[in-house]
Amino acid sequence: MKERALIFAALTAILLYALPGMTANKEAKSNKAPLSSESQACVDCHKGFHSGVVGDWLSSRHAMVTPEQALQKPELERRISSTSIPEKLSKVAVGCYECHSLNEKTHTDNFEHFGYNINVVVTPNDCKTCHKTEVEQYMGSKKASALDNLQKNPVYHALVETIVSTKDVKDNKVVRTAVSEDAKNQTCYACHGTKVTVKGKKKLSTSFGDAEVPELTNWPNQGVGRINPDGSYGACTSCHPRHGFSLKVARKPYTCGECHLEPDIPAYNVYHESKHGNIYSSLNADWNFEAVPWTVGKDFRAPTCATCHNSLLTNADGEVVAQRSHDFGARLWVRIFGLIYSHPQPKSGKTYEIKNKDGLPLPTAFTGETASSFLIDQAEQRKRQDVMQGVCKGCHGTSWTESYFTKFHKIVEEADAMAKASTLLLVNAWGKGLADKSNPFDEPIEQRWVRQWLIYANSVRYAAAMQGPDYAAFKNGYWELTNNLAEMEQFIRLTPKKKK
Amino acid sequence: MKERALIFAALTAILLYALPGMTANKEAKSNKAPLSSESQACVDCHKGFHSGVVGDWLSSRHAMVTPEQALQKPELERRISSTSIPEKLSKVAVGCYECHSLNEKTHTDNFEHFGYNINVVVTPNDCKTCHKTEVEQYMGSKKASALDNLQKNPVYHALVETIVSTKDVKDNKVVRTAVSEDAKNQTCYACHGTKVTVKGKKKLSTSFGDAEVPELTNWPNQGVGRINPDGSYGACTSCHPRHGFSLKVARKPYTCGECHLEPDIPAYNVYHESKHGNIYSSLNADWNFEAVPWTVGKDFRAPTCATCHNSLLTNADGEVVAQRSHDFGARLWVRIFGLIYSHPQPKSGKTYEIKNKDGLPLPTAFTGETASSFLIDQAEQRKRQDVMQGVCKGCHGTSWTESYFTKFHKIVEEADAMAKASTLLLVNAWGKGLADKSNPFDEPIEQRWVRQWLIYANSVRYAAAMQGPDYAAFKNGYWELTNNLAEMEQFIRLTPKKKK
Amino acid sequence: MKERALIFAALTAILLYALPGMTANKEAKSNKAPLSSESQACVDCHKGFHSGVVGDWLSSRHAMVTPEQALQKPELERRISSTSIPEKLSKVAVGCYECHSLNEKTHTDNFEHFGYNINVVVTPNDCKTCHKTEVEQYMGSKKASALDNLQKNPVYHALVETIVSTKDVKDNKVVRTAVSEDAKNQTCYACHGTKVTVKGKKKLSTSFGDAEVPELTNWPNQGVGRINPDGSYGACTSCHPRHGFSLKVARKPYTCGECHLEPDIPAYNVYHESKHGNIYSSLNADWNFEAVPWTVGKDFRAPTCATCHNSLLTNADGEVVAQRSHDFGARLWVRIFGLIYSHPQPKSGKTYEIKNKDGLPLPTAFTGETASSFLIDQAEQRKRQDVMQGVCKGCHGTSWTESYFTKFHKIVEEADAMAKASTLLLVNAWGKGLADKSNPFDEPIEQRWVRQWLIYANSVRYAAAMQGPDYAAFKNGYWELTNNLAEMEQFIRLTPKKKK
Repeated sequence: MKERALIFAALTAILLYALPGMTANKEAKSNKAPLSSESQACVDCHKGFHSGVVGDWLSSRHAMVTPEQALQKPELERRISSTSIPEKLSKVAVGCYECHSLNEKTHTDNFEHFGYNINVVVTPNDCKTCHKTEVEQYMGSKKASALDNLQKNPVYHALVETIVSTKDVKDNKVVRTAVSEDAKNQTCYACHGTKVTVKGKKKLSTSFGDAEVPELTNWPNQGVGRINPDGSYGACTSCHPRHGFSLKVARKPYTCGECHLEPDIPAYNVYHESKHGNIYSSLNADWNFEAVPWTVGKDFRAPTCATCHNSLLTNADGEVVAQRSHDFGARLWVRIFGLIYSHPQPKSGKTYEIKNKDGLPLPTAFTGETASSFLIDQAEQRKRQDVMQGVCKGCHGTSWTESYFTKFHKIVEEADAMAKASTLLLVNAWGKGLADKSNPFDEPIEQRWVRQWLIYANSVRYAAAMQGPDYAAFKNGYWELTNNLAEMEQFIRLTPKKKK
Repeated sequence: MKERALIFAALTAILLYALPGMTANKEAKSNKAPLSSESQACVDCHKGFHSGVVGDWLSSRHAMVTPEQALQKPELERRISSTSIPEKLSKVAVGCYECHSLNEKTHTDNFEHFGYNINVVVTPNDCKTCHKTEVEQYMGSKKASALDNLQKNPVYHALVETIVSTKDVKDNKVVRTAVSEDAKNQTCYACHGTKVTVKGKKKLSTSFGDAEVPELTNWPNQGVGRINPDGSYGACTSCHPRHGFSLKVARKPYTCGECHLEPDIPAYNVYHESKHGNIYSSLNADWNFEAVPWTVGKDFRAPTCATCHNSLLTNADGEVVAQRSHDFGARLWVRIFGLIYSHPQPKSGKTYEIKNKDGLPLPTAFTGETASSFLIDQAEQRKRQDVMQGVCKGCHGTSWTESYFTKFHKIVEEADAMAKASTLLLVNAWGKGLADKSNPFDEPIEQRWVRQWLIYANSVRYAAAMQGPDYAAFKNGYWELTNNLAEMEQFIRLTPKKKK
Repeated sequence: MKERALIFAALTAILLYALPGMTANKEAKSNKAPLSSESQACVDCHKGFHSGVVGDWLSSRHAMVTPEQALQKPELERRISSTSIPEKLSKVAVGCYECHSLNEKTHTDNFEHFGYNINVVVTPNDCKTCHKTEVEQYMGSKKASALDNLQKNPVYHALVETIVSTKDVKDNKVVRTAVSEDAKNQTCYACHGTKVTVKGKKKLSTSFGDAEVPELTNWPNQGVGRINPDGSYGACTSCHPRHGFSLKVARKPYTCGECHLEPDIPAYNVYHESKHGNIYSSLNADWNFEAVPWTVGKDFRAPTCATCHNSLLTNADGEVVAQRSHDFGARLWVRIFGLIYSHPQPKSGKTYEIKNKDGLPLPTAFTGETASSFLIDQAEQRKRQDVMQGVCKGCHGTSWTESYFTKFHKIVEEADAMAKASTLLLVNAWGKGLADKSNPFDEPIEQRWVRQWLIYANSVRYAAAMQGPDYAAFKNGYWELTNNLAEMEQFIRLTPKKKK
């Protein structure tokens, strides 16, 4: 008997050791937290009707762990930041009803649905119930105000309307006929967010019979600065897509790449062609994207966007390398997404509050002077640079890191100079009557100027930040900066004065 | 003894449970179906000579399962659609000889090879032996006629010849010197397919000695509308590449991305930058791409191209969400690959049979009117839209889905308007003698017009279909549509009348 | 007892069979080679300080196997090529100190660091201790001379300086103000390599206190032709990034894609959209990227860059299909990265030694004649073509392969003709005074000429080599070649003679 027991114990041990390894790469986990009766009702009905929603949620941590269990983790391992959770939420899975019934009073999109009061849109203000710190950090970021920052800034507003308006041709001239909400929602606001309000009710015919549901404006949308029916700002689902809310997704570069991509903000593309991106693409299947905290050199061996910009990182000794932040600019000192030129990060996420010397809500003036009083000072820049260098030093020596940063700053300065050169040519063209400055975005030479800073100078700056050689060279880099200036100069030289 | 047996049974159970999980992600399976003596002879010789072919085939379902076994599956799980299989094929693996010896009589590429009569090219007509329904569906699709649709349409033909002809400069003018078959095969026909015929025999020196083999024209090629030496149309290997014929490959977006990509048909690129693409890229390693039927929320948690466009889908209750179709347009109602403008899907896959009001085989006239009698009607459009919405609703609510489709249709309409504006400018330029309309594709302003619809308007339409924000905005989207119109207008305004 | 033993044996066998499968996809291995006391000291200190470096190295073969063990492998499986290893290195892991202390005398970057003499940069001359053949092959390649090939060639040098210089506008003219080392290092030299020398010492404040370290010029850099502080050429880390030195990384296409990418050298992009790339992307998670030798059809089922260009390949019978080479041009006969035109591969990696009929160090003259005496002859071209075809034939028939190569050569010829046409137009423009030939790279029509060969003709050639249909068609292919010629011609026709 003893021997049998021994065999059994030994084999069981081997299996217990081996089994987790077998499924480590799978998201599916077998433990489920208890479901509230309300959520059980949702699942029973929606399981067949919306198998994708239910299946995705079943794969999520929300289905596995109750808030009470989540709170018992040691601090660094904790995935929720609120220190107390309402009693009725704490002992059940974070199910359909737990999220879609929160803060009913503030939700103009709340409606009666088979006996339950349901919100259509779950908002950051709801997520805040468990994820307080994250939501508070987010609210101070530029992301939360991304829609306001476009809409309340007349310059950006003019750019949006010039581009996404529909055009017709009358008397051989291109004329703008309309600017639809759909066009804005499909382009700029897809990332920046829309204003979602309830404009009434509508009847839907579903396979379960007719239902009356709130009719929402500018919906669907997952933009980072979405204004929600409860008045809150932002959409956690931009990066934590429903209904898996997976950390793995948020930590992978494709998530950021939805909006931060070529040609205007080629962060994803530069990363993809960088050495970091190369190692990530080659090896990430072997890494751990679920670990909290995230340990450098153990859980991953090259950074993703989240590593450098916002994740909680620890080193091999368990010490904190960088604190988590959901203000995604918190580790950034210079803003390289040049408008028109690079500049220190704004103090507030509400960039429409800035006023530059031209009287406009832009961080730099037309000819380059920064609106300093609205931007972080040298000390704050240094502090943030130190945080970022701390991340780099997880894998790179101090000398390497410092040299890298020196080159980065020099390249950013050169890209600004190349943008400035195109501004001078544009002023020249305006002076000669070759273009009309009343709308600085609607004529070909003006659009060349926009390309110079929004596409080419941005590419060079991002390439310098993350080491993508070709985005600084032939792919929207120095090559295009140079060619574009030559084309602008030639146009001015060869074009007879315009008679309007 | 009993206890031992119990231990053994328990552990075996655990192992049997665990083992499939361990290898679920691997394609290699251990069971092999019996090989015919002919195929064994092929393998014996080609194993060393073409290890890749044999190794790939060994990984395939064709090597694992006999048609007879395949037929025993429940209907929804079945991967073959023919209900009876010729006796001599049914009890052996689907090996080299089984496929390469079929329908010898119709194969002009049949040749004697070490005592066997072998076809060089295996065609849809051969695959039809087991996959009858799929081939029949395919034959009605635009894909099957993709080569004819180019060659038999004088407008497309002129575009192809203008672009892929080699050019020289004589008397300071660019002149076309030749249009090689190779240039066509490398560009348009690489995707559309070539006409493969037997032009004779040729001697090959191989490491096995000299061999005489059929000499084929326009070979190799895997285009979807290939015309084969047996007179059949299409190439199953376009999406099910030899010799693994893997469902996993066909269901992954890279397969479609070979031909449906930026700049003219940016379906793959839009998908890649969309939320669906983001989730796919982040999590697909954990999904099941081999399951038949394919269950929403269980086997995958975001769609690939195949999910929405042709796969057999079931929900968590085992009910069919959408039927499989190998007519890849079967779930499509509007054709957003604008030629020049969007239009209802054509009734027949043979688009060269269309006649529009200009007398040309195009679905819309030069100024936009649709050739309605050749296109599907409202009822059919509605029906197909319902099928597609059924797929969306696997993961999205009815209200969400309907709002999404409303926006999509509005954006398509705007992209059409922007294409129309460029048509009006082109007409204007022709009228002023700034370009010569005899060939509408060979002068710079005409090529701007082509870009407007073939690249920019298409990008916007695809972005609206699959939610890629930047392909609607700065990346070949509204930004380029707008800039291109401004450039066209400026060219017309600034250019003195052309004297030829 | 016997039965128990039997059960135990059976189950153990099953487990032993199953366990490797479970972890095959993980890089982490459990066996570690013994560490030298010096390397142990490095690890003790740097483990927390640089967790990424240590963690990466711990995942590497260098941490698992001593050189002595590595030498015991059968020849085809061996990963080191030196036949004898210095005694003190042979019985310990290839640790920090083993690499960073080699050849101290020749290392101008050697410095005293807590009692140890350490080189900052580990160079090919150090790696050569164990990897002799690889380094010797590499030294003869164009890669090793990539920096010299740019710097010592006045034509390329002029192109670099024209593009990456910073520009200003004075008197309405674009003027070049400076060319910074940083700009060159960020663009061309990021891939080509920089010259790293020691310019002095600098003090660093680290979390371990102040340290004095060598101050290096043009650092950091991992370009393939880097000139190192010990006078050696190259950087093994370009493709085998520190400190994992993973074969898996080097064999995946992302590594090559860092430098060989769109728009000028779209090798990676063409591969990605090709059938090979499609299969790779769909299935590579199931393949073995660690096996040496690399067996066609068993370890992989579609090639990556390394497969065709340099890896040691065997077939299913264990026979060598192609020998390993670290001269990455060794299997290439024609150089399709056209400068300006395609040409036979140069005999020497030092292309700056070439002299063409214009007296310039370019493989072809301005109008196309090759500098034949510096290029490989027909026999050598044939030989290399046979090696490459041998690789293709691992998966493709002889007839297929030969037809493929025929088409490839024809397309390359056509791309050359299209480049030549633009050269003729440029000569025309120069003749009419519409541009000034003193610098052939700085005016818009000259930059169109550069695009014609460097971007568009290159795209077509790469597309023909690796079967990417759209890079030959609309994406920088025949479409752009054609449009660019039309634009050049129109510019010449419409522009009044330039008065300077």
